[in-house]
Amino acid sequence: MKLSIGIDYGTNSARAVVVDCADGSELGCGIFNYRRGVQGIIGSKSDANVARQSPFDYVDALEIAVKKAIGEAKLARPEIAKEDFVGIGIDTTGSTLLPVLKDNTPLAFLPEFSDNPDAQAWLWKDHTSFREADEITELAERIRPQYLKRCGGKYSSEWWWSKILHCLKTDREVFEKAYSWVEISDWIPSVLAGIKDVSAIKRNRCAAGHKALYSEEWGGLPDVEFLSKLAPELAELRGRLYSDTLTIGDLAGKLSLEWSQKLGLPEGIPIAVGALDVHAGAVGCGIGDGVLIRVVGTSACDCFVVPKTCGMREIGGICGVVDGSILPDFYGIEAGQSAVGDIYKWWIEVVLGGGKDLYDKLGSECALMRAGESGLLALDWNNGNRSVLSDQRLTGLILGQTLLTTQAEIYRALMEATAFGARVIMERFSGSGLKKVIYCGGIAEKNPATMQIFADVAKMEIAVSESKQACALGVAIAAAYTAGVYPSILEAQRAMGGKIKCSYLPDPKSSAVYDRLYSLYLKLHDSFGGVAQSDMGSVMKELLEIKDEVRNNS
Amino acid sequence: MKLSIGIDYGTNSARAVVVDCADGSELGCGIFNYRRGVQGIIGSKSDANVARQSPFDYVDALEIAVKKAIGEAKLARPEIAKEDFVGIGIDTTGSTLLPVLKDNTPLAFLPEFSDNPDAQAWLWKDHTSFREADEITELAERIRPQYLKRCGGKYSSEWWWSKILHCLKTDREVFEKAYSWVEISDWIPSVLAGIKDVSAIKRNRCAAGHKALYSEEWGGLPDVEFLSKLAPELAELRGRLYSDTLTIGDLAGKLSLEWSQKLGLPEGIPIAVGALDVHAGAVGCGIGDGVLIRVVGTSACDCFVVPKTCGMREIGGICGVVDGSILPDFYGIEAGQSAVGDIYKWWIEVVLGGGKDLYDKLGSECALMRAGESGLLALDWNNGNRSVLSDQRLTGLILGQTLLTTQAEIYRALMEATAFGARVIMERFSGSGLKKVIYCGGIAEKNPATMQIFADVAKMEIAVSESKQACALGVAIAAAYTAGVYPSILEAQRAMGGKIKCSYLPDPKSSAVYDRLYSLYLKLHDSFGGVAQSDMGSVMKELLEIKDEVRNNS
Repeated sequence: MKLSIGIDYGTNSARAVVVDCADGSELGCGIFNYRRGVQGIIGSKSDANVARQSPFDYVDALEIAVKKAIGEAKLARPEIAKEDFVGIGIDTTGSTLLPVLKDNTPLAFLPEFSDNPDAQAWLWKDHTSFREADEITELAERIRPQYLKRCGGKYSSEWWWSKILHCLKTDREVFEKAYSWVEISDWIPSVLAGIKDVSAIKRNRCAAGHKALYSEEWGGLPDVEFLSKLAPELAELRGRLYSDTLTIGDLAGKLSLEWSQKLGLPEGIPIAVGALDVHAGAVGCGIGDGVLIRVVGTSACDCFVVPKTCGMREIGGICGVVDGSILPDFYGIEAGQSAVGDIYKWWIEVVLGGGKDLYDKLGSECALMRAGESGLLALDWNNGNRSVLSDQRLTGLILGQTLLTTQAEIYRALMEATAFGARVIMERFSGSGLKKVIYCGGIAEKNPATMQIFADVAKMEIAVSESKQACALGVAIAAAYTAGVYPSILEAQRAMGGKIKCSYLPDPKSSAVYDRLYSLYLKLHDSFGGVAQSDMGSVMKELLEIKDEVRNNS
Repeated sequence: MKLSIGIDYGTNSARAVVVDCADGSELGCGIFNYRRGVQGIIGSKSDANVARQSPFDYVDALEIAVKKAIGEAKLARPEIAKEDFVGIGIDTTGSTLLPVLKDNTPLAFLPEFSDNPDAQAWLWKDHTSFREADEITELAERIRPQYLKRCGGKYSSEWWWSKILHCLKTDREVFEKAYSWVEISDWIPSVLAGIKDVSAIKRNRCAAGHKALYSEEWGGLPDVEFLSKLAPELAELRGRLYSDTLTIGDLAGKLSLEWSQKLGLPEGIPIAVGALDVHAGAVGCGIGDGVLIRVVGTSACDCFVVPKTCGMREIGGICGVVDGSILPDFYGIEAGQSAVGDIYKWWIEVVLGGGKDLYDKLGSECALMRAGESGLLALDWNNGNRSVLSDQRLTGLILGQTLLTTQAEIYRALMEATAFGARVIMERFSGSGLKKVIYCGGIAEKNPATMQIFADVAKMEIAVSESKQACALGVAIAAAYTAGVYPSILEAQRAMGGKIKCSYLPDPKSSAVYDRLYSLYLKLHDSFGGVAQSDMGSVMKELLEIKDEVRNNS
């Protein structure tokens, strides 16, 4: 028996799974809810943009979640022995980064910094650095436009350089005390490996990719000239960061004596280089040539890979394209919708003031409706548009209302809008060999009516991944490969990942109506998105025609 | 003391008022709720378009409401004597028309027709003849385009010829038994006057105007050739209709012995020619040169007059322009918004499922918001657009939503949308000498927060009429003139009508923001209305800019 452990660090909790390397089955799972801050997030009463995390929570999670998972696995299979464990993999959120001393101690562990939020980990969704993000975008537009090509034209406040620059500008003490900064997806493996020298930490390309503007194309991180125009201190910091990055399944280090004793695992087993959660999930769900993985919950993350042998492809409006970020030998491509479940939640909870009962009630009413019969059409931009417009300064739109339009009809129109938004992204990939679509995440697991709309709108079969812990499974797969159980990551993945729970087939009658609605959606999308203008004068009338036809054909 | 009586026949009830001719003060009021059908409307379970009324209700209302009003007036002023009553005026809904025998007996009074809905009065909002309306529009487009110029380009199923043609096609027995047809605004005066011959009934130009396509420009009613292309029977009927029409304040007849005894009024006092309710209300509210009267409730009706000495003006998108329809010597001009209060009702009751409490709660929240701070913009087209687009095939639109947008913010955006729609209409009149705006109706009386928005958006002082019975007052004014109390209708109106309860002054700060929102509203209006295309790509961004500015200047 060979077992690997995958550990997934989420926004509010971490979970570890013990996986059988033979077939990927999950033998045990341990969850740790972060204890510091509110649900693990250290915020600020005066600034809603602040979101930090304590590295103490990361270390606690490591011990508690892994031990729980091992305990549960041993209950399920009492024959499990310590020696059966062959490797460990870790994925985390990102950019979530941490200021550290030269010896890899987080500043947050020093008594004098323990209460300073700037010395903690800066969580991906910390938006304090929105001005620095604009500054970086503007500078890159002027002197390094190639940097922006890889990240959809706009550098984000959720990413590496914005956060470090903001720390420099607002908390010089922390900035100067920090010898270096580390993504937690690199820091946690380094803890397990007992690395006491920052320069020895292995850095993963997942996180370095567009988030730290790392590319072999321009020699790694952004150059000294660029950084010094932002701040000379950043240019100096560059020398204390990294020049190499590794891809999934590479070795981050070997399990230290200390941690082997804490966890009851063999000393020296390999620790796979860290990964970002979305990429790990894509691996767990079965990403591969021509397979699009969509993680659909509050928002949607799309992962797609294109073989490097095909040469680099530019895909219009797709924001993250990084060599090896998801699988080695492939360009990893990321896209997404800024809100999916969050739009449904907005309607049901924020506007209508309802809860679970209302989700159920409107969900059943929606399930009885036919495509086109409400006469409504909406844009899914309540949280901006990530792909393919890369524009956060966009907002929602609903049209086609009469005096009889119901709350359920609007709910369904919003679902359809998210499905149209998904189709726009899929059509961008269809030129790059899209053959299969696999959904995972909360919406895929819990909303069959919504999933049917996604399939009808896409005019494609949509499969739903079986794994509920796809991210942890993804890094367990990586660990199995790193441990030499399989000769390649693809073979590890074939044996252990990509299991399908069910599939949704498009209904041709609905698809035909949705084709017409989609062409109207595109008119709104392109016009309000500022991409291309078209005649709006016919939109309401065409919607009424479709509505009349559908109602008369009942 | 000189007293006149105004009787207003509404959709569900009739009310009579006794008015002092000296100053227009209301001394007594009597209301009669119709008894037949549901709230006075005889519908059909199988066809939601059917809306009829029993003429028995009209006659009952005449006796009961007038007697109540007189009784109340005598309580208030015991010195009132029978001889103080000098005249009677009547206004009604329209086109609401009735098939009658040659002796002016309604078919509905014959036992064999008493239960036949087609023999009753066809209420204005009966829409069974929507196909006939299209047929009339198409024929007019082909051979008499001038007919459509006066009614906004489209003949309506709410009007005279559609209804008679539908009766001919679907109930030949009623059509053949009917010697003629009469608008109830002409029939009720004829009852009071004891007229027993249809050809002696005086017809009012209000109702004949665009509703029956009557114009002196083409010799009265539509010509024989036109009507015979619809149906030869209509062309024959034309000869049993009318060729002359009278304007407000003209004499419809004198009170018959029978009705003078029933009501306790002097025999032979003048009965003013009937009027449509909206026009009567405009007279009561003080319409005159440069004064726009807006009756704003579920929908909005606009009345405006232009002196005939100025020559005929075409006002783009304004649907009813009739010589003398409101005041003699003026072109009467009608416009309107297909839904105002109905849009608020849609949001609060249909979508949110709320009632009075929710109106109050959201109303107070809206009152605290500033122009522009929600980032929302809406179109007020949930029931189509009457003016200035004359297009019922348009629908609602809301844009600018984020994940934080609240139900109160949307409620306010819908109010603002109706105010923008109102401004579009006002701007059409501003070229024709608009100097003053007076609102009346439910919204004007009950929604001060909404009224302030109307004023801020219009950038004009908006006065609110004092009279709650403006329609009845309007015909009481007409009756006073007909009775010779005043030498002209304008002098009667000056003395008795046009009293103002309060005024809303625009707030310059809000108006400045609304100017910017209005220019975006116009972009949406013209684009989705099919009038002119413009760049939609900046709309959401400009709304966000306005939102940011307003929030930062708090």
